[in-house]
Amino acid sequence: MIIALSGGVGGAKLALGLSRILPQEDLLVVVNTGDDFEHLGLRICPDVDTTLYTLADLANTELGWGRRDETWTFLQTLASLGGETWFRLGDGDLALHAYRTQRLRQGTPLSTIIADVANQWNIRAQVVPMSDDLVQTRVATDEGILGFQDYFVRRRCEPAVRALEFQGAASARASAAALAALRDPALSAIIICPSNPYLSIDPILAVPELRAALREAKAPVVAVSPLVGGAAVKGPTAKIMHELGVPLSAASIAAHYADTIDGFVLDSRDRSAAKAIAAPVLVADTLMLTLADRERLARETLEFALQLPKQPENLAKTAPASRLGPT
Amino acid sequence: MIIALSGGVGGAKLALGLSRILPQEDLLVVVNTGDDFEHLGLRICPDVDTTLYTLADLANTELGWGRRDETWTFLQTLASLGGETWFRLGDGDLALHAYRTQRLRQGTPLSTIIADVANQWNIRAQVVPMSDDLVQTRVATDEGILGFQDYFVRRRCEPAVRALEFQGAASARASAAALAALRDPALSAIIICPSNPYLSIDPILAVPELRAALREAKAPVVAVSPLVGGAAVKGPTAKIMHELGVPLSAASIAAHYADTIDGFVLDSRDRSAAKAIAAPVLVADTLMLTLADRERLARETLEFALQLPKQPENLAKTAPASRLGPT
Repeated sequence: MIIALSGGVGGAKLALGLSRILPQEDLLVVVNTGDDFEHLGLRICPDVDTTLYTLADLANTELGWGRRDETWTFLQTLASLGGETWFRLGDGDLALHAYRTQRLRQGTPLSTIIADVANQWNIRAQVVPMSDDLVQTRVATDEGILGFQDYFVRRRCEPAVRALEFQGAASARASAAALAALRDPALSAIIICPSNPYLSIDPILAVPELRAALREAKAPVVAVSPLVGGAAVKGPTAKIMHELGVPLSAASIAAHYADTIDGFVLDSRDRSAAKAIAAPVLVADTLMLTLADRERLARETLEFALQLPKQPENLAKTAPASRLGPT
Repeated sequence: MIIALSGGVGGAKLALGLSRILPQEDLLVVVNTGDDFEHLGLRICPDVDTTLYTLADLANTELGWGRRDETWTFLQTLASLGGETWFRLGDGDLALHAYRTQRLRQGTPLSTIIADVANQWNIRAQVVPMSDDLVQTRVATDEGILGFQDYFVRRRCEPAVRALEFQGAASARASAAALAALRDPALSAIIICPSNPYLSIDPILAVPELRAALREAKAPVVAVSPLVGGAAVKGPTAKIMHELGVPLSAASIAAHYADTIDGFVLDSRDRSAAKAIAAPVLVADTLMLTLADRERLARETLEFALQLPKQPENLAKTAPASRLGPT
């Protein structure tokens, strides 16, 4: 059993790689839901949906988000009504949101709905939301506090980030499937995918039960750097690091995860950062342009994780739970 | 000022004809909302939407419902999820439902939303729902009581109708715009469009304030028969008349409206029914295949209405309101 923690696009690429080199049933992907929001009365879960589309081979690789072979009649008609069109909802994408929203209203937990969608689309890997409870990433910026999609989509990440808050995380219960997998003696490795650490992984780690179970897990934890040549492949990671006053280096990412990881994978273009990282480092080509790239990086990351010794400085991970609750 | 009472397709055709022979601003269409229902968390108003699409020249004349140039990606994707696809929602159609549902949730009355849609789509005729309150047509059948869309779409009108109930009608407030127009001294005529009397017009007449205002109106009321050659052009009118034990004749339709109308328009193929009708009758070609047909029938119906004397046997229409409330 392998666990991957993932946000949207970048993370889903490595999750897809893992799903193709493993028996799919052996992979469990814990997905960020801090980006989730209500729009036009629909519950939208961008990272979960990107993960589902990617694993079901339905993703729109040209756009980098949404579904392949999408149509846009809904949005065009909504525009003719003077409706809100800043969030680009494709016609097929909308079906997933409507289906989910209806079932949530009927009282079905998000995790059950996602499992049913995965089943319908023949995804045999387990895809689980970090929590069935609502956690909402709020972005404190120089223009005030913004909801995540307000910041990310409507304002195109233009406001400068001062801090991030994961509203509801402290009281959110972790995904039961994720907790069970983290405590499963058959668990071999935990991979933190190359998603934005601040926007996509931190919300997952902000769920107290998940953070605690991750630290207590016997399996090695390896994070893959989202930087390639000191820049983000996609999205605002580098911009946010600058705004938060964090040096733009893979070493900063490793330091961010220091109390969580047993090993770190960085891109060969960032090789020089390795010496500043305390944890064991794998230098790899982390740019995933092709499906073969995704499989190769998944294989190299997994092989690296499976041979890692537990590091003495990570003994804190096995400290009693009483020391590890939310503070 | 002319008022038309209308259901969906057939009624909307005559409303379109009226809107083209009159200054559009002089037409107010009161539309049945007894068919309205919640589906996938969306409020759907089939007759209002058909009226809007027809008047905005956006209607799908091939299907006979929905929008022109429609796409179906939403429904196809919903099918791939195992979702409910018995109600055929086009991608563009969906935008109207999502827009309306969001604004209803924000507390905007249905009538305001419809007025805004009409304005966005350059419809200058007034389109008003019979009520802003929820009225739901329930169909008592040999298979039990069914919601309207369950009966009409899911069960394709197959169960035999025993009775109809308009849940919520007795306590529903009438559309304020419809009431004002019915009481306006400038009102010249009221046309009951060739919609299904039992399913589409009766719900409107079941709203007590509307029924009373209609009876008290000084302008003549003319109904156009939905039968052509003793059969319904579209829909279950004839089947329902049979099931309710009503002779299949235009005279039965006239009798159904007897306490409401000052004149009746029937199709030339049903000419023989005229002698059994107490009210003045216009024999016309009521089959509206082309736009010219719609304009011609609108013109003939209106000319007929405007020259009608008030009939002595219809004096009940001017009786005090105290006699006319719901019983």
